[in-house]
Amino acid sequence: MTDRAARELVTPQRLREFFAPRSIALVGASDNSGWARFIVASCATAGFAGPLTAVHPRAKGAFGLPVVPSLRDLPEPADLAFILAPPQAVEGVLDDMGAAGIANAVVLASGYREVGEEGRVRQDALLDRAIANGVTVLGPNCLGFVNAHSRSAPYALMLPPPLIAGPVGVALQSGALASVVLAFAKAHAIGLSVLTSMGNEAMMKTADVLAYLVADEEIGDPARFARAAERADRAGKPIVALKAGSSQAGQQAALAHTGSVAGDDAVVGAVLRQLNVIRVTSLEELLTTGAALGYNRWPRGRRMGVLTLSGGSCDIIADAAAAQGVAIPDFSAETEAAIGAHLPPFAAAHNPLDVTAFGTLANLSARKGPLTAVDHALDIAVQDPNLDFVLFSGVVLPEARPPDEEVARTLETRVDWLARRMGSAPIPVIPVGSTCVNVSDYGRELLTRRGLNILGGLDLGMRALGHTLRWLENRGGVRAAPARPAPPSRAWPAGPWSEASWSEASWSEAPWSEAPWSEMGARRLLAEAGVPVVPGGLAGSADEAVEIARKVGLPAALKVCSAQITHKSDIGGVVLALGSEAEVRAGYEKVRAAGLAVPEASVDGVLVTPMRTGGAELLAGVTVDPAFGPMLAVGLGGIWVEVLNDTSLRLLPVDAAEVRRMLGELRGLPLLLGARGARPANLDAVAEAIAGLGEVALSLNSALDGALRALEVNPLWVNGDQVEALDVLVVTEPGTEQAQ
Amino acid sequence: MTDRAARELVTPQRLREFFAPRSIALVGASDNSGWARFIVASCATAGFAGPLTAVHPRAKGAFGLPVVPSLRDLPEPADLAFILAPPQAVEGVLDDMGAAGIANAVVLASGYREVGEEGRVRQDALLDRAIANGVTVLGPNCLGFVNAHSRSAPYALMLPPPLIAGPVGVALQSGALASVVLAFAKAHAIGLSVLTSMGNEAMMKTADVLAYLVADEEIGDPARFARAAERADRAGKPIVALKAGSSQAGQQAALAHTGSVAGDDAVVGAVLRQLNVIRVTSLEELLTTGAALGYNRWPRGRRMGVLTLSGGSCDIIADAAAAQGVAIPDFSAETEAAIGAHLPPFAAAHNPLDVTAFGTLANLSARKGPLTAVDHALDIAVQDPNLDFVLFSGVVLPEARPPDEEVARTLETRVDWLARRMGSAPIPVIPVGSTCVNVSDYGRELLTRRGLNILGGLDLGMRALGHTLRWLENRGGVRAAPARPAPPSRAWPAGPWSEASWSEASWSEAPWSEAPWSEMGARRLLAEAGVPVVPGGLAGSADEAVEIARKVGLPAALKVCSAQITHKSDIGGVVLALGSEAEVRAGYEKVRAAGLAVPEASVDGVLVTPMRTGGAELLAGVTVDPAFGPMLAVGLGGIWVEVLNDTSLRLLPVDAAEVRRMLGELRGLPLLLGARGARPANLDAVAEAIAGLGEVALSLNSALDGALRALEVNPLWVNGDQVEALDVLVVTEPGTEQAQ
Repeated sequence: MTDRAARELVTPQRLREFFAPRSIALVGASDNSGWARFIVASCATAGFAGPLTAVHPRAKGAFGLPVVPSLRDLPEPADLAFILAPPQAVEGVLDDMGAAGIANAVVLASGYREVGEEGRVRQDALLDRAIANGVTVLGPNCLGFVNAHSRSAPYALMLPPPLIAGPVGVALQSGALASVVLAFAKAHAIGLSVLTSMGNEAMMKTADVLAYLVADEEIGDPARFARAAERADRAGKPIVALKAGSSQAGQQAALAHTGSVAGDDAVVGAVLRQLNVIRVTSLEELLTTGAALGYNRWPRGRRMGVLTLSGGSCDIIADAAAAQGVAIPDFSAETEAAIGAHLPPFAAAHNPLDVTAFGTLANLSARKGPLTAVDHALDIAVQDPNLDFVLFSGVVLPEARPPDEEVARTLETRVDWLARRMGSAPIPVIPVGSTCVNVSDYGRELLTRRGLNILGGLDLGMRALGHTLRWLENRGGVRAAPARPAPPSRAWPAGPWSEASWSEASWSEAPWSEAPWSEMGARRLLAEAGVPVVPGGLAGSADEAVEIARKVGLPAALKVCSAQITHKSDIGGVVLALGSEAEVRAGYEKVRAAGLAVPEASVDGVLVTPMRTGGAELLAGVTVDPAFGPMLAVGLGGIWVEVLNDTSLRLLPVDAAEVRRMLGELRGLPLLLGARGARPANLDAVAEAIAGLGEVALSLNSALDGALRALEVNPLWVNGDQVEALDVLVVTEPGTEQAQ
Repeated sequence: MTDRAARELVTPQRLREFFAPRSIALVGASDNSGWARFIVASCATAGFAGPLTAVHPRAKGAFGLPVVPSLRDLPEPADLAFILAPPQAVEGVLDDMGAAGIANAVVLASGYREVGEEGRVRQDALLDRAIANGVTVLGPNCLGFVNAHSRSAPYALMLPPPLIAGPVGVALQSGALASVVLAFAKAHAIGLSVLTSMGNEAMMKTADVLAYLVADEEIGDPARFARAAERADRAGKPIVALKAGSSQAGQQAALAHTGSVAGDDAVVGAVLRQLNVIRVTSLEELLTTGAALGYNRWPRGRRMGVLTLSGGSCDIIADAAAAQGVAIPDFSAETEAAIGAHLPPFAAAHNPLDVTAFGTLANLSARKGPLTAVDHALDIAVQDPNLDFVLFSGVVLPEARPPDEEVARTLETRVDWLARRMGSAPIPVIPVGSTCVNVSDYGRELLTRRGLNILGGLDLGMRALGHTLRWLENRGGVRAAPARPAPPSRAWPAGPWSEASWSEASWSEAPWSEAPWSEMGARRLLAEAGVPVVPGGLAGSADEAVEIARKVGLPAALKVCSAQITHKSDIGGVVLALGSEAEVRAGYEKVRAAGLAVPEASVDGVLVTPMRTGGAELLAGVTVDPAFGPMLAVGLGGIWVEVLNDTSLRLLPVDAAEVRRMLGELRGLPLLLGARGARPANLDAVAEAIAGLGEVALSLNSALDGALRALEVNPLWVNGDQVEALDVLVVTEPGTEQAQ
């Protein structure tokens, strides 16, 4: 109920109003408030036009603003209240807002969820009070937001002027990073739309801001982020995420300052990839990638033309291109000839092109017109049928307007021409600087007036380009998970599936309460769902074992079958490659005795299956991530998982085509394709079996109301077209395990 | 002879004079020369004090400089001649220099080695003429150099002022990158010593500039770079290299603009690691790493204290630290308590420390003195015994001097205090900015006057820190290779050993001429040098095969032995696991027949060895890189090399301890350590065997005057303490192969 009521307060429609206030009340502002000083300054920097009013019961002045004692005393309701009051006063302010008809609040105060149980209770109370008063809340523990388009900037830290309006929206968990983001954005003339500090996200979540930025009208079920990402992908609005906490230390740091548990990083990485959310590792990459996607037309392919002023730049770009999988094909013969006419005789008109210092020199002579050699090369290269786009590292903007009017006009004419030519070119042109230094005020003015942006250096530029291309190629494949049972409310550790640290040992060490099924039950579950399982039977006597072995074929493998014994090999509960009936008989007795020797284990019998040799072994399993729900992991067995952590992860559901892509991500894939003389595996059959496993896991979890812990096949044996689950493990919450 | 004469002209002593001219003659300068205009401007930017004279046979004026018709007409010899003349005039100018007693020249002209055979001849002639006249030459195809300490800047491109003198020397292959380097250096207040454009390196090589920067008095044998690097390491002068051409496309680009062949990138990478040369992939990383090493005291370990103004910075730093293997330990209890006293009650005094916006606010109030919370934290943290160094992200410098004198003085007092405290702190303090944006002119002034530098953002800063730590840890282990036979002069393709693309197929595709030895000869070579080889003998009949098998033990493996048959399995020339004498007899006939069926192959007999099973298989081989000489590659066999490219490379010679480290670099190492229940391998025994192999390769190559092409053991079998070469291949130049 609370949840649904809260969600109605953070629809894109509500947030559109929230982030564009025309009047703001600063509750708790006085001349003594450093926070208020910052907000007033930020609003001035942004050019906020509407009234700013201080609200304080006792203060005489507040930086020259009009002061009223309470929100109820405002001449008319403000669009937004920025609450600077201490935590114990916030709920009263929310009541005032309800009475005064003010719908939107930013809550600055700390002392909520980030300080433990007491704070959590306070935060719940705040949320309830906000809902009761119909107030949309950003925060608490939040510094506010900036909207460069509507020129409102209720932000409680220094903003470096000027604020440039543009295509990039930013939602920050750490509000103090805003000034850093703005500094980099300014340095590289990257225009922002909305920048928010998210704080504790008591009501408004990052997913809501995303949905608003994507201009989506509807936010549905619990997987809000996934839904927002799916819609963003469909709408062609790329999301770039800097998710901190990939390290253990990072997770602790995140915990300390946001009070929220950072998810297992490998799971987060897999989910973001699946949602086609671009993941970056630095602020610089975040903003440069935003700029690459926000300012430029998008390439249709990976064939890049490169135009530069130096051979060194060509080399660096070529290396970065190889790292990003971007091709630098030869120019067509026509292009080479036409560009060659603009170069000195010793320079080669090859892709990547270095027009040499000649290009720079030519710019000095106004007699030749405003265009330099690299500009002529651009004019020609955009017509080349061999190219999908052009990377243009040919503009160096001066520190200030050149004092010589003719020089200045020549430069400005050149930039005009470039903007026009880039607009009219048949393929996208992506301008990039030679290194990551600030664009001057004059340069920024030249660019922003023409809607241009120059990416901040070859390294960042090429990384941003790589992200852009991957994002474009992955578009259309995002499918958010359907509604699923809410995860249990108690805190769980990160699941044992992790690309970084998967090991079999994780299972036995998992500290939550769990109950494994007997293997016969687990086998039946899979087989009934049509997942291929190695034939076999449960023997209660040596005679039965021989009979089953005769039926399934020798040589046979025998395993003790007991829900209480998970590591059967360790206790001698497995014998392999029994070639004769006598061996089967002896094996039965050995395995049974080993099982009976385990205290408190109830032995169901001995599982008899045929031995499978040759081919390859995979591992396929589902575990339930506390944040994202059931996740599928696929890997090659043995060393590939244990030594190389070579696994691929996905949120369920996935279809066979997606599993096929997962297999393609494995480093060990060549083994399945027939490396070392092995028989090539039928990957479609493998994918079908694993997709079936995923479906079984989802249905079981749903039938058990979210009590599934793990469903694992290890190994999943494949030999050519033959695919079989050789060992199956199902673990559910105690009390939900299937009786044998 | 030419080589030795040239080397005497580029000793560190000569280069010291070369790079600090007090007078410069610009040969070919006139009012029409754009290049001369740049040089005059660059000298002005640098504050060059000495006379600049134009030398031109006909010109009336040259930007107001005095003009003389020839170098012979100068009133006194200039320290340096910057030759702007076209290629056909350069040799005459060198004669004029000899006559006038001018010892140093920069040659700008293009049209030398970079344009093919004709240019190569012209470049040789230039070198001869320079030597004949006793002239040290930088270039040709070179833009000059900048010496910020001596304030001389004969550089033929625009230099962005101001030029900051400092600890970082830069040698650039691409001269046009100089302005980019200077722009980034200026943006981050990184002071330079000497910056050179290297051009075609006809006489002066990058290694010579390194030797000069390291202040080394002696340059010896052909492995000049390695020697310079070894001395640099010993002298504590780190070298940072941005080596372009890691991609195939990059190699083509490098070829196009420098006329020199870029080496196989994996080999270059291995050599640089071995020489403890830091390798970076971007200009920004190059300069930031230089600044990290040049401005800061060096950490003694990896335990880092982190002090920041935002939780977001803490998260980003923690992730980057994990990626770099840097620890962020807990503060001591004393540190926590002492820092806690400077924080608001809700803030936690943990490492990494976020002093929260409180730290920023406190700075506004001069009443509290100039120090902010983060400064107090610094004062305390540097005493913490748990830390090896402190990363300090606590200074934000303003765009300009604050107009309020008191605010300005407070800030400047604070920076003074920080400089002093960093100087007096028991552990190094490394300042880092929050993001990669320019330091303002005012900020740069504040920093440089106090010898401080702030690394350009968290991402670059942490990468630079990682490089710093690895460099420090690897110091002392650099051993340059001894003199080796000069490589053949013909151009070779990159060797087949490559971490990126090694495959067995490379051997057969290698296009140079080569001759494999018969396996018996290769086995004998190793065995005589004490490298363990699996026992075996050459059988000329089935009876002999049986006799040998009886001696070495069954089951046996049989291989046809012929120098002409390298891929024996493919033609049916190998049979394995022969368990009885009858099987050996049949195997002999089969293998021999297979060998005889190969046209033009001369079959020496059939090699009979015992089968080895269990344990693990490695690959160890030596190939000869055209640039660096004999290289050792070590990897795990089978999929590890073929699918995963899991190899480690080194320049020879290496000792067993170094081979032990190579084994440690393999991703598959756990397999050798006993993963999956295997017997742990005696790594010392493995390392001994491989080091022996390296010695054999070096002696053989030396004995054959550099005619070794490859020496490979694949597999090298290891099972516990037992190590044996199961298959040995030796390839030398035709005519040098050992007769059977």
